[in-house]
Amino acid sequence: MTYQFITADMIVSGQRSIYSVKEKVASFTPSLTSVLIVTQDTIKNLGFIDILQEQLASPETTIEVNTNILPEPTLENIEAVYHDVSAKAYDLIIGIGGGSVLDATKILSVLMTNNQSISDMLGTDLVKEPGIPTVLIPTTSGTGSEVTPNAIVTLPEEELKVGIVSRHLLPSLVILDPELTLGLPKPITAATGMDAFTHSLESFISNKANPFSDMFALESIRLISSSIVEAYENGSSVQARENMLVGSMYGGMALTAAGTAAVHALAYPLGGKYHIPHGEANSMLLPHVMNVNMDAIIDRLYLVAEPMGISITNKSKETIAKEVITVIEEWTATLNIPQNLSDYGVKEEDLKELAVSASKVTRLLNNNPKELSLEDMENIYRKLLP
Amino acid sequence: MTYQFITADMIVSGQRSIYSVKEKVASFTPSLTSVLIVTQDTIKNLGFIDILQEQLASPETTIEVNTNILPEPTLENIEAVYHDVSAKAYDLIIGIGGGSVLDATKILSVLMTNNQSISDMLGTDLVKEPGIPTVLIPTTSGTGSEVTPNAIVTLPEEELKVGIVSRHLLPSLVILDPELTLGLPKPITAATGMDAFTHSLESFISNKANPFSDMFALESIRLISSSIVEAYENGSSVQARENMLVGSMYGGMALTAAGTAAVHALAYPLGGKYHIPHGEANSMLLPHVMNVNMDAIIDRLYLVAEPMGISITNKSKETIAKEVITVIEEWTATLNIPQNLSDYGVKEEDLKELAVSASKVTRLLNNNPKELSLEDMENIYRKLLP
Repeated sequence: MTYQFITADMIVSGQRSIYSVKEKVASFTPSLTSVLIVTQDTIKNLGFIDILQEQLASPETTIEVNTNILPEPTLENIEAVYHDVSAKAYDLIIGIGGGSVLDATKILSVLMTNNQSISDMLGTDLVKEPGIPTVLIPTTSGTGSEVTPNAIVTLPEEELKVGIVSRHLLPSLVILDPELTLGLPKPITAATGMDAFTHSLESFISNKANPFSDMFALESIRLISSSIVEAYENGSSVQARENMLVGSMYGGMALTAAGTAAVHALAYPLGGKYHIPHGEANSMLLPHVMNVNMDAIIDRLYLVAEPMGISITNKSKETIAKEVITVIEEWTATLNIPQNLSDYGVKEEDLKELAVSASKVTRLLNNNPKELSLEDMENIYRKLLP
Repeated sequence: MTYQFITADMIVSGQRSIYSVKEKVASFTPSLTSVLIVTQDTIKNLGFIDILQEQLASPETTIEVNTNILPEPTLENIEAVYHDVSAKAYDLIIGIGGGSVLDATKILSVLMTNNQSISDMLGTDLVKEPGIPTVLIPTTSGTGSEVTPNAIVTLPEEELKVGIVSRHLLPSLVILDPELTLGLPKPITAATGMDAFTHSLESFISNKANPFSDMFALESIRLISSSIVEAYENGSSVQARENMLVGSMYGGMALTAAGTAAVHALAYPLGGKYHIPHGEANSMLLPHVMNVNMDAIIDRLYLVAEPMGISITNKSKETIAKEVITVIEEWTATLNIPQNLSDYGVKEEDLKELAVSASKVTRLLNNNPKELSLEDMENIYRKLLP
């Protein structure tokens, strides 16, 4: 078996690492003429853009800020932003925000150097040339998008989320500054944190799991397990926030190396059709999919117990695996993860169609250690219609 | 504290991964006109160059092979090879061999795109532009050079080894194929394996250790500890060879993130003046330096015990730390690591000068958890004059 690892060029982590953007950028783009910052108003209002502007401002450097990327952006939204900014030649793009902003920034970077539309790029390895050098600065601990070669866009007419996969989407620099996540609201801390945990656990049980993904997944699981409840209950804990940020980044590395599985396959239709945010959909589904997978993943769940802080002394593998799921279920309760699809307008009679949509995500279902029937999938969704 | 991680663009691992060079190269250099392969005759005679030539050969692609890089190459040696090949424009350089070949390949790659001499590049971040896209294929499990931004050259007139550090030295692709290491002779398996272990253990006890380097160091220690004796005694074990190759690569990542310490500082004069190969010098020194460091590193050695397979149940931290050193000493005996500097012409009266030379490597000595006096260093060398 061969397996591979691909990631961002440089990752800088730690409290106040946002103040090192200028110094680190100088190591790959020595002279800055024109910088584009992609973000959202919610981020701008927190003052993070000011920190970047004060660092980078100089008589030689013009800085533009665009805040028009929407949550879970559509292809049209990204194209509209591209249209707004494409008249100018930038030598650096900085994306600062959650997964939606980071994914959109990655796409904008390659749109600027390739004579291709977004539609031409949908799929794997279809982006022709490297993009503009990019800096990605996550403000949530969730998607791991800052270190993956993937970007997701929504196609509303088809009620679908689709992806671009290309090594040219990887950034030149990633900044993981826990101070940027101290003010993250509780529901977002919970959903994005469980999303990151889902990336790592799914990568670890994936049929494509390998020595690279296993290391990143286990370290991610260890960090997130030690800190997710603390980050939720005591949002200003820098240490818990740093563990979540590094843990979600490792989750991105794990999923890049091994791929995710059924949780993600079942989440996509919830995003495409009912506009449930990606992290929330994953975290709603996680315990239920793991329960259905259970008998196929006992040996793997056994290995994640210790990194999760679960004692394994004098217990059978089965007992230990069940305790892993119990802890996930307890988190779901403690973190108030939504467990009701009807809040998003999903009805009992929609479940069959959702299962049919999920069953088409064969790329991810093939990674799942257990084959899921349409009925299995419908039953999983039904758990979320109490 | 901020800390950072920087590595090769893409790492492909696993048995027969050398056969994927062509496919992976196509993802970043779609059309190949002219390829330079840098290696040594010993590697060529094993048939590995044929595997590359058969894959890459086409009417559009010319392939040249240069085997003139010497072990522990001098600045003049690399410049002479550059002179031989520089008339042509290459779109890819492949380095296949041990650390000397990989380091030289990295330097050749940036010489070809920069109007700078090697002397101009000595130091940190002095290489101006990215080099020719590079593929690095290690045939020993030791240096981790394939994933570090460092390259070492020897300056014979000054009896010194000096380094170039630049992100532009990182390759586009790394291939870790354990089959290439199956025939590695026992003494090289031993010295390079202990060198890799030294990188990880020194990174883990370094004053600059951080969450990134710790993960790579501990996983490297786990892999090498599980396999170094097996790889030595049963060289044809693909699993042991793969663990050593991945373990030494993680060692390179760990040392890039945290830096090495006193073992490396003491090894440099042995290389510069007495031409002792780098891996051998490190592995000779490792147990002795760790014994001197002992009281400052008990808490860290305690943490490496479990990854080394040492039971920690019902033992004090001190006992566990001592067991870690005992295991390293046992390896030194089992693997027949040379322990006699007089074989290389070192005499008792040379030790003072060696210690003075080592004391000048302050960049690495500053990472050491304990300050070493000239007398401490002389005494460490003396342990190797039995």
